Amino acid sequence: MAQEKEKATATALTRRELLLGAGKITVAGGITVMAGGGLGLLAGCGDASTTTTTAAKTQSATLPWPYLKLETVDVKKIQETAHDNWFVGFCAFATLSGIVTLLRDKVGEPYSSFPMEVITFAHGGTAGWGGTCGTLIGAGIAASLAAGPKVGEEILNEVMKWYTETDLPIYKPDNPKAEIKSVSKSDSPLCHLSVGKWMKKEGVGFLSPQQMERCARLSSDVAAKTVEYLNAKADSKFASANKEPAAVNGLPSQNNCTECHGTNVPPVPTPGGGESLIQSH
Amino acid sequence: MAQEKEKATATALTRRELLLGAGKITVAGGITVMAGGGLGLLAGCGDASTTTTTAAKTQSATLPWPYLKLETVDVKKIQETAHDNWFVGFCAFATLSGIVTLLRDKVGEPYSSFPMEVITFAHGGTAGWGGTCGTLIGAGIAASLAAGPKVGEEILNEVMKWYTETDLPIYKPDNPKAEIKSVSKSDSPLCHLSVGKWMKKEGVGFLSPQQMERCARLSSDVAAKTVEYLNAKADSKFASANKEPAAVNGLPSQNNCTECHGTNVPPVPTPGGGESLIQSH
Repeated sequence: MAQEKEKATATALTRRELLLGAGKITVAGGITVMAGGGLGLLAGCGDASTTTTTAAKTQSATLPWPYLKLETVDVKKIQETAHDNWFVGFCAFATLSGIVTLLRDKVGEPYSSFPMEVITFAHGGTAGWGGTCGTLIGAGIAASLAAGPKVGEEILNEVMKWYTETDLPIYKPDNPKAEIKSVSKSDSPLCHLSVGKWMKKEGVGFLSPQQMERCARLSSDVAAKTVEYLNAKADSKFASANKEPAAVNGLPSQNNCTECHGTNVPPVPTPGGGESLIQSH
Repeated sequence: MAQEKEKATATALTRRELLLGAGKITVAGGITVMAGGGLGLLAGCGDASTTTTTAAKTQSATLPWPYLKLETVDVKKIQETAHDNWFVGFCAFATLSGIVTLLRDKVGEPYSSFPMEVITFAHGGTAGWGGTCGTLIGAGIAASLAAGPKVGEEILNEVMKWYTETDLPIYKPDNPKAEIKSVSKSDSPLCHLSVGKWMKKEGVGFLSPQQMERCARLSSDVAAKTVEYLNAKADSKFASANKEPAAVNGLPSQNNCTECHGTNVPPVPTPGGGESLIQSH
């Protein structure tokens, strides 16, 4: 079995190398899993994906789906669709449908059969709970469809780094629903912080015309950035540049610990077994 | 058009009623959108979904897909699959594939054609960034496929409330990968807090055998709870019991503001236009 072979290989690596290094293999306490880039993907979740189902699979169940490098005019259409579709189904649907609608026109199936509304729930940081920004969940779905789960996740990780470090929104639609004046850097992938910081800077409330316009433009920005990386992959020029935060910080987290923890940042926990050094959770 | 009719109806309601009330309609600054339960779904995203694509749609693009009420033996299979599949593709894939694999066997298409690995990226709070727990993203996809985006989101909102308030994990697999002794209440839908609190209580590090086993069991728990609500819907007994936090708090957020903000909880911002009262973001 492939797992046995990987397990044997893994014995030459320390646990820390396994966790924080190239991430090829993670072995802890006899459990063998295979990670891709950063914490990446586990065994059976590569680009040519496998599933555990006993039912017959159709072609569309296997990722990635066909992708054609998109042109500037295509990206403009994607941004227009994403912006307008925010007002149909909020942020996650907006970002995903911006990309998938274009790919339906350019590629057709299996995109035409994909139920884009399946992601609508992710708005407002997942059903309004303020967690991961819905645009990023929509982007993750689109990237995974078009690049497969492993590369799709690597692309999303790059998009998330850009999202947290960039003054947004950038996109200026031809037909805005409201005029806005502010841009802001979220320093976080969380809806609560991203939209909250922008609302404070703009001086508006939640569900104001300005806030909705801001989130619609943000959906366009995230869709365009995702396509930028998908195009790079189509040109065989995409390379994962950054490790996922969980691999760097020893815990799924943002990278700017002090924003929430102040000066009392817990030390990086011991990877794998052993006593946790997390003090404040 | 339905939107025009709803807009006319909306004029009898104040903006605050629109935002914080039953959430049927939200009108701000001339922008009309239709919300479902809580902040719910916008126009065109009901159970019989519509899309903006110009390409031909196939049946599978329209939600919900067929769902058969599942029996106790089915739920046990789902939990076993979810637990085992955590070690194939982490939490979001585990929860989603637990449910979809069973529905592939019971229902067949369109579930057999759905690329379950599309959600793998959501592990670790989305690519390891510590945001929304991946089990909840997987649950949201499964619920939306089987109940449509509107009811699927309402189901997920109930699952999230339960998730944040319940000592987890509950599930005890026949074949655990590791022995664990602790249960913990997350008080948050965020991976960073949910797994961090449990790791501290158990006294183990990230990617320890115990942490991985805990998250695998959690995937089973979330899958089973989601099916509980899907079964209730199949019996016409599901009713959304709780508003989404964004509708209650005037901002996408958790409900326990003091956990992050201490005693300095910002006042609820003015809904819609006007100056934001958010002080700390």
